[in-house]
Amino acid sequence: MVRIEHIGIAVKELDKANELFTRLFGEQQYKEETVESEHVTTSFFKVGPNKIELLEANAADSAISKYIGKRGEGIHHIAFEVDDIEAEMKRLAREGFQLLNEKPKKGADNKLVCFLHPKTTNGVLVELCQEIKS
Amino acid sequence: MVRIEHIGIAVKELDKANELFTRLFGEQQYKEETVESEHVTTSFFKVGPNKIELLEANAADSAISKYIGKRGEGIHHIAFEVDDIEAEMKRLAREGFQLLNEKPKKGADNKLVCFLHPKTTNGVLVELCQEIKS
Repeated sequence: MVRIEHIGIAVKELDKANELFTRLFGEQQYKEETVESEHVTTSFFKVGPNKIELLEANAADSAISKYIGKRGEGIHHIAFEVDDIEAEMKRLAREGFQLLNEKPKKGADNKLVCFLHPKTTNGVLVELCQEIKS
Repeated sequence: MVRIEHIGIAVKELDKANELFTRLFGEQQYKEETVESEHVTTSFFKVGPNKIELLEANAADSAISKYIGKRGEGIHHIAFEVDDIEAEMKRLAREGFQLLNEKPKKGADNKLVCFLHPKTTNGVLVELCQEIKS
């Protein structure tokens, strides 16, 4: 794993959260993007080599609304950048981690992603992500 | 803010968690350290320019035991590296964020640290940290 690519934070209202994190970082978000398949709208901030991704639910059955309903707003997942997502998925499956998708899927910010089940990672929702080469 | 310095993860049993995160990263922790003032034992993994800090409580009244009692194991805080912690604390107080300590205090890994109250940061426990120069 190359570095922390981003931290995902579940928020109720993206506009308010954008304003809050702009005050926190002293700098505005650099993009917003809706990921239809995940029923979320995302917003990204840069912090040096890392990013913060705010996540607002678009639908009541999105994973983010369920998460907020259960635990409130807060840190939702850690995403690690990897060089070869398929090799890393195979290695982690062999190590006993449970993958939430069998094949890499298209995520926000031009990435192929895969999530690991938090029950196999000490309660931490871990995302692997790899930039899609154009 | 320069980058994500580390992510703090609350765990019940540090030995088991060290073994799990070693399998996740394919690399062992590079140090363990007890922080008496916080009643925690910590363990650090490197992931490129970032770190993961595992936190196990040493005492029933430590913030980490309370956190695990309420929410279970999982991501506890995000720490951002800053160049000048006192200036950053003043800036954030002016912006309306609530600081949990008025002066920087000594944290793990040779750092001066300050925490922001999660009620002012969308439920996210934010730590500022600055390397102590020898």
